[in-house]
Amino acid sequence: MHLSRDTPQVNGSTDYGKNVVEGLQKEEKLEQASVQKLSEEQDHVLKTFRLLIADLCQQFNGGHPGGAIGMAAIGVALWKYVMRYAPHTPTYFNRDRFVLSNGHTCLFQYTFLHLTGYKAMTLDQLKSYHSDRVDALCPGHPEIEHEGIEVTTGPLGQGIANAVGLAMASKNLQATYNKPDLDVISNHTWCMIGDACLQEGVGLEAISFAGHLKLNNLTVIYDNNQVTCDGSVDLTNTEDVNTKMAACGWDVIDIEDGCFDIEGLVEALNKARASTEKPTFINVHTVIGLGSAVAGDAVAHGAAFGTSDVANMKKAYGFNSEEHFVISEKVREFFGDIPARGQELVQAWEKKVQEYETKYPEEGAELRQRIEGRLPENWKELIPTSFPDAPTATRKSSGLVFNPIAEKIKNFMVGTADLSPSVNMIWKGKVDFQNPGLKTTCGITGNYSGRYIHYGVREHAMCAVSNGLAAFAPNTFIPVTSSFFMFYLYAAPAVRMGALQHLQVIHAATHDSIGMGEDGPTHQPIELANLYRAMPNLLYIRPADSEETAGAWITAIDAKNTPTIISTSRHTLPQLKQTRRDLVAKGAYVVEEVEDADVTLIGVGAELSHALEAAQELKAKKIKARVVSFPCQRLFEAQSTEYKRDTLRRHRGIPAVVIEPYAPNGWERYADAAACIKRFGHSLPGKAAYKYFGFDVPALTAKVESYLQQLRDDPLLKGEFVDL
Amino acid sequence: MHLSRDTPQVNGSTDYGKNVVEGLQKEEKLEQASVQKLSEEQDHVLKTFRLLIADLCQQFNGGHPGGAIGMAAIGVALWKYVMRYAPHTPTYFNRDRFVLSNGHTCLFQYTFLHLTGYKAMTLDQLKSYHSDRVDALCPGHPEIEHEGIEVTTGPLGQGIANAVGLAMASKNLQATYNKPDLDVISNHTWCMIGDACLQEGVGLEAISFAGHLKLNNLTVIYDNNQVTCDGSVDLTNTEDVNTKMAACGWDVIDIEDGCFDIEGLVEALNKARASTEKPTFINVHTVIGLGSAVAGDAVAHGAAFGTSDVANMKKAYGFNSEEHFVISEKVREFFGDIPARGQELVQAWEKKVQEYETKYPEEGAELRQRIEGRLPENWKELIPTSFPDAPTATRKSSGLVFNPIAEKIKNFMVGTADLSPSVNMIWKGKVDFQNPGLKTTCGITGNYSGRYIHYGVREHAMCAVSNGLAAFAPNTFIPVTSSFFMFYLYAAPAVRMGALQHLQVIHAATHDSIGMGEDGPTHQPIELANLYRAMPNLLYIRPADSEETAGAWITAIDAKNTPTIISTSRHTLPQLKQTRRDLVAKGAYVVEEVEDADVTLIGVGAELSHALEAAQELKAKKIKARVVSFPCQRLFEAQSTEYKRDTLRRHRGIPAVVIEPYAPNGWERYADAAACIKRFGHSLPGKAAYKYFGFDVPALTAKVESYLQQLRDDPLLKGEFVDL
Repeated sequence: MHLSRDTPQVNGSTDYGKNVVEGLQKEEKLEQASVQKLSEEQDHVLKTFRLLIADLCQQFNGGHPGGAIGMAAIGVALWKYVMRYAPHTPTYFNRDRFVLSNGHTCLFQYTFLHLTGYKAMTLDQLKSYHSDRVDALCPGHPEIEHEGIEVTTGPLGQGIANAVGLAMASKNLQATYNKPDLDVISNHTWCMIGDACLQEGVGLEAISFAGHLKLNNLTVIYDNNQVTCDGSVDLTNTEDVNTKMAACGWDVIDIEDGCFDIEGLVEALNKARASTEKPTFINVHTVIGLGSAVAGDAVAHGAAFGTSDVANMKKAYGFNSEEHFVISEKVREFFGDIPARGQELVQAWEKKVQEYETKYPEEGAELRQRIEGRLPENWKELIPTSFPDAPTATRKSSGLVFNPIAEKIKNFMVGTADLSPSVNMIWKGKVDFQNPGLKTTCGITGNYSGRYIHYGVREHAMCAVSNGLAAFAPNTFIPVTSSFFMFYLYAAPAVRMGALQHLQVIHAATHDSIGMGEDGPTHQPIELANLYRAMPNLLYIRPADSEETAGAWITAIDAKNTPTIISTSRHTLPQLKQTRRDLVAKGAYVVEEVEDADVTLIGVGAELSHALEAAQELKAKKIKARVVSFPCQRLFEAQSTEYKRDTLRRHRGIPAVVIEPYAPNGWERYADAAACIKRFGHSLPGKAAYKYFGFDVPALTAKVESYLQQLRDDPLLKGEFVDL
Repeated sequence: MHLSRDTPQVNGSTDYGKNVVEGLQKEEKLEQASVQKLSEEQDHVLKTFRLLIADLCQQFNGGHPGGAIGMAAIGVALWKYVMRYAPHTPTYFNRDRFVLSNGHTCLFQYTFLHLTGYKAMTLDQLKSYHSDRVDALCPGHPEIEHEGIEVTTGPLGQGIANAVGLAMASKNLQATYNKPDLDVISNHTWCMIGDACLQEGVGLEAISFAGHLKLNNLTVIYDNNQVTCDGSVDLTNTEDVNTKMAACGWDVIDIEDGCFDIEGLVEALNKARASTEKPTFINVHTVIGLGSAVAGDAVAHGAAFGTSDVANMKKAYGFNSEEHFVISEKVREFFGDIPARGQELVQAWEKKVQEYETKYPEEGAELRQRIEGRLPENWKELIPTSFPDAPTATRKSSGLVFNPIAEKIKNFMVGTADLSPSVNMIWKGKVDFQNPGLKTTCGITGNYSGRYIHYGVREHAMCAVSNGLAAFAPNTFIPVTSSFFMFYLYAAPAVRMGALQHLQVIHAATHDSIGMGEDGPTHQPIELANLYRAMPNLLYIRPADSEETAGAWITAIDAKNTPTIISTSRHTLPQLKQTRRDLVAKGAYVVEEVEDADVTLIGVGAELSHALEAAQELKAKKIKARVVSFPCQRLFEAQSTEYKRDTLRRHRGIPAVVIEPYAPNGWERYADAAACIKRFGHSLPGKAAYKYFGFDVPALTAKVESYLQQLRDDPLLKGEFVDL
């Protein structure tokens, strides 16, 4: 182990990478030099592990063997000697969290789950990797649904940001609940990464942010094998990674002989856990596919080695080349003490919590509630029952509705991607989540019990970190993010991962629709809602006024397994008499009914008032228009056929026209024609933008009139969708 | 000017930021100390500029004054003393490129465009900022459509990646065409950034990549005012940025007194242009909103100062507080020589090109063709006229179609986000675009005339850099990117910017549909096509076999002002007899016609063969199914009503069922029912995944049968969309 706290000279930066790789090429020499450090037992465990990985990929001739094999010693150091966890109580609250950010090496984690005694991960299940078993616990990337997996990973860079969130969650709980005599929360977060997580933007954002926060309870372990799909990493990355990490505020430790130096790894990992100041980056130099014929080569990454190579590996390791999936009694013994050790941890912790509850009954009750993922029962009462009549931007309504909840209920961690003045998420007396040693130039301080997070202009990391906060334990935290809606395109891969993992994260997205104005087409979301309306397990809600904004927040907070985007306006909107918070949960509802209607106008979010005004105008022209408010497609889809038909009345032959300055794609399910937009926006003040695109009331009225005339003129149009 | 090529000690990293900001707070002292360096004329120009910005924001009481004001001296250094450009020939091919990555400070650029004599940017136009003029040249962020603007910016971090692309374009042209005696291409790329571009992931990816490539013709100028919307930057970022940049392979220069030190700035900028080894990062310490009452404060960022503050600024500067938009004759004179200077550059260059054409006729002709953005006329002949009968993955078809084109035609720069072995974009004898000094561990070398780009696992930067390549000059380059389709979600903000800017970029996206298999739900795109089908000015094409893949590439290469995603399969697909490359451009076409059909099956991309097989199966059950291939919705939308009706025949009462394992949203326009997916995918081998989700032929046949029965049973279903 070599502690490189001193930064290497920058002039030497490219040589640095070169040296690493040249070192790796001396693999055989390394192997001879290193094995002596290992006990015979450890050596046997490493060999067994590597052969298991080779066999698991060989059985269906696919998968990612190389990384997992190269990381074997890291895994032994972690699971045998360092991590605090309990295989027989996988959800033990104070467990260390482990994130495999290089998720394609999932066999690494699956195999250690098996060896350390996780009950679900039987040998039979372990062998399900790449099989056609529908109930397999070994999908191609780790999935949160399965025992022992903290977060779903795969898209690179996400895991490291999740790990930052997991570490922030611990920090916040520690600062909120721990007492000098009782540290009920004390876990550490470990994150394994590969070369790619240091290239992906979301990873780089998270690294910079974690360094700023001085998350000393976070350790990133870099499987530095200098190999990616295209070849050696220096094809595309020759930066001096240690210096870069140090510049970002991380302690840096090098492990030169990462394939064998279990002792050095354990020492480094323990040092990282003991860090009092900074997160730790352990740069572990490994060899991809060690021991195989393709060791150190890119082809070791994503393909099985072939039967003869696997057989040769076995022979070289002194194993029987005819036997597969061999786990000797010695290996079983090596890991045998872990379940019991884990149960001891669990029992000691439970005792500690009980003591805490006795000594600190009020905080104890709250902590218990948090552990169980419950909110105070009366949370809905914190929401105003009515709102002032004055026209209000729904981004302000969001604040009116949610700030009192955020103030009182500690489950909520609320962050913004540098848009505090715009998104209205600051509550009275908010405290920032910050390293308590920080004193900013602008005079703001904070501490780790703070719950307002300045993520910086890092939308992607904000949402990925929030997934980590949410994944700490079900609903112990309900993270809230905020930015302009358009910039949730930057964050989309993380929003998706939240939906896929059934994590309750609430995204307060403001400045939706062209009504946001002058910032122009780069900031005007035309097609983004189409993504989020199609994304499984995500609620995209556009409330029309304060009342519907209340409904949107209630729906979002009630959605325990689903993330929500609450999409609000920059500009003021009238408070409508007809809106109902309780009906937002239905997705759509009638706000103006007319018998023998000629047309239904569907108004959405900021443009519902346009629909209501257009209906009034149409009345003067003897056209009877009913109006439906339609804040959320997915919620509406979940309603009964009867409710849906009653709401839209298309089955009675009444054509429906949707009014929304977004791309129409998908509205065809609910409407017959669209006053929508099929091009990018335009930089104009909000009202002028509405007029420019034909969303002012005279233009809308004319469009509807003309459409009804067209329908009379061309019978074929009935049954076809018309863009107005 | 202080050259800090030596890295500061890492231990001092947080102090570094602190010192900067403390320095900024000493603004007044700085002002006194600095003004002496300025000539009286320069001082007057800076004051005029700052007051112009204040007035321009004040007139409509909005906009972003602070940054532009802080950057005044940088602008004078660039436009007056350093940049090579021609206001009266704005598209002069060898001009320096300037990118305003902090696009919200657009007034900075607009005002210099006006002052330096760009004809379109009249004073009247300059005053259109934040007005409701529909034909304004001063939108809220710079837009490529307008004279003197190289790229549209606004979403932070994009511009710096675009600048990397612009610099790569120059490098490639230089290496391809320059001769020892004739350097026809010699321009430099200048990129202005703010704090945010150093926080956004895409910026960090681009920085790391540019350092690797040693783009010495690129200079990034950091407007280091340490202020963002939420307050001081140290609220969220306390990293040592200079050390980080140096670790990424950049030369670093500090300018301590960036508000006034024009001389130091010019020296630094010239030094940057002269760099022979690395890109240069100039860290310019400035004061946001200098001279206003809110100087150095976050509120200076995004709001007008108020009339009295603006009046006070004028008084303090010795200007008449009653006069607005004052540009004295002295200021006009200061910038007066620039248009003529520019025309001299243009003439000298044109002469040089003529000389080149005479001396090197073959290369000269090619260069001329490139300058004019033309392809060799016979490019289509490079595509195979037919393909082998063997089932072929369309990702392989992509290679068969496009590799010969990429090999022969130098307009194409082809990159991959570390998926060379998967995306089939490598042509025979390809040379990598690399710094010629690089020799990678895996033995690959390259040079700047190379046209294959290893972007690393940086999907977002890949697409943003490609926008820069495309923006160099219309169609001089046609960049091609490649990755798994799912990871175009990471790149989506850049893909969007390409569509918005009408840049021809071709994205070769592989592994579409659940057929990609074991990698599981994190890699299976369910809802991503919904985004791209809704995105204006983007073609999302899913070809069904090699023949349609040929059609997709032809369409993409023909689309001079539109980016295209060609979305292909990982798994092998049968070569269908009925497909036609020439009809892909229609978006959809009939592949199997039946008279008196009972149903139309719409097959899309990888699943067209499922539709054809299901139609066969249905025939056995006496159900007559016609089949439509539907590779691209946007192309189909552009067809005549008659063509659309003839293709779908819904107007004849034939229900249409779409078959595609994506979210159905949007198909409602063309179909009556969907065999689609409304949940996330599942990790299973491709065939098993198809079966699991009901896309095998027996399941599809049963769905269609059952739907036709439902239609008979419930007449209301006609006119409603049904998920099968």
